Amino acid sequence: MNRQELINQIRSKKSFLCTGLDTDVKKLPVAFEKEAKNILPFNQAIIDATHEFSVSYKINTAFYEQYGAQGWEIMQHTLDAIPKQCFSIADAKRGDIGNTSSMYARAFFDTMNFDAVTVAPYMGEDSLRPFLEFENKWIICLALTSNAGYQDFQKLEVENEKLYERVLKTVSKYGNINNLMFVVGATRAEQLKLIRSIVPEHFLLVPGVGAQGGSLDEVAKYGSNDDCGLLVNSSRGIIYASDGEDYAIRAKEEAQKLQAQMSHYL
Amino acid sequence: MNRQELINQIRSKKSFLCTGLDTDVKKLPVAFEKEAKNILPFNQAIIDATHEFSVSYKINTAFYEQYGAQGWEIMQHTLDAIPKQCFSIADAKRGDIGNTSSMYARAFFDTMNFDAVTVAPYMGEDSLRPFLEFENKWIICLALTSNAGYQDFQKLEVENEKLYERVLKTVSKYGNINNLMFVVGATRAEQLKLIRSIVPEHFLLVPGVGAQGGSLDEVAKYGSNDDCGLLVNSSRGIIYASDGEDYAIRAKEEAQKLQAQMSHYL
Repeated sequence: MNRQELINQIRSKKSFLCTGLDTDVKKLPVAFEKEAKNILPFNQAIIDATHEFSVSYKINTAFYEQYGAQGWEIMQHTLDAIPKQCFSIADAKRGDIGNTSSMYARAFFDTMNFDAVTVAPYMGEDSLRPFLEFENKWIICLALTSNAGYQDFQKLEVENEKLYERVLKTVSKYGNINNLMFVVGATRAEQLKLIRSIVPEHFLLVPGVGAQGGSLDEVAKYGSNDDCGLLVNSSRGIIYASDGEDYAIRAKEEAQKLQAQMSHYL
Repeated sequence: MNRQELINQIRSKKSFLCTGLDTDVKKLPVAFEKEAKNILPFNQAIIDATHEFSVSYKINTAFYEQYGAQGWEIMQHTLDAIPKQCFSIADAKRGDIGNTSSMYARAFFDTMNFDAVTVAPYMGEDSLRPFLEFENKWIICLALTSNAGYQDFQKLEVENEKLYERVLKTVSKYGNINNLMFVVGATRAEQLKLIRSIVPEHFLLVPGVGAQGGSLDEVAKYGSNDDCGLLVNSSRGIIYASDGEDYAIRAKEEAQKLQAQMSHYL
């Protein structure tokens, strides 16, 4: 999917919601036996219920890999169930030396047909380049993450800036606004302003709004740009809105609620 | 596998060789049609030919993921083909927020029964901890990698040391010498000395000796400790030693050659 198609979809749905399919067998609603084979019909029901309000779906690969080859089958079928006009993300956080990253790129862009894959920056340029050679495909590079451990390295001072600022500056030289986004777990105004001063035009994938407590208002106010420039993810808040028979209806309501809030900023 | 079992194997084989099963369909020897299903019999033949000289096998997950679910089946069967006394490594470079890393740990330690998995440090403490909760399992954390891109971030100066030094210091607080190793792509004496001053007792996994041109002599001289403390990987130099009918014999010869060199330092 190219940038304009993504922007058009955001404008037409009046939403920049990404729904995270972090599906955990143990949390499946009562309608399903707690077995891996039920992840797919659950995901299908969630997608059916939310795609009117969600411009993107993010599949967290770890949740599927724990079931080995069967999990990879389920991941593939879940991807197939995502409507073509929605932006699909493999949240895989891959990254390796050049020839190995080429194979990861092939795994997610060729074998499976994701629009984007999340990548880790630690190994630098040649670990990212192979992903950028695919037309209308994207990498979403970790910059500032929302977990406690971000303090260990990302916020370290390197030559008068934080490491995550350096990551934004360096990696933005390798890609462009048509094939590169950043993961930014920021929800505070001053952080978002700083990030936007470094990458004014790139799309940002923001996790952690909702269940993880981030403020959609701050993110939209200080993180958006003229093209919206945001994908804001919610996983648990939507897919586990209810564990009863009404799980799909409740998921739809939660997605709609977020979309309604988002529409004020578009 | 625990640390003492690994050390015992190193002493009895007089080897600290790790054979990398980075098996690329396009490079299969003439005896095999170039199809994914032939990766397994090729790997099996390589393991049979080399396990007398190799204490460890490293499976690079990217090479398998490019074939989707089928690739994960092949990876599982390849792991099953590795003799139990050899130390098995999933070179997967995973890392995510805590509850997601738990699932990666389950994927590689439970669903598949690897001894170790490589991890990326960028997301910090909670991205690593879940892997360390498994008994007799290991993480091998990226510190200094051997690719060109290591210059982008790993060698940056943070508070009077390089980022990779900080990674060694910080991450070594989370694990111990019985469940934590580091990836160190260093082959120069002064780098190895510096690294050993920070983590004197940990095992180091050293890629890039052989085809990538590193010197085994320097690594053994400046990287080893009283327990050996090294796993030195060779992939292409062994598994693609010949693309003819003699591929297994030649792989065995190359492994034996490295083992013979290694024996001088043990």
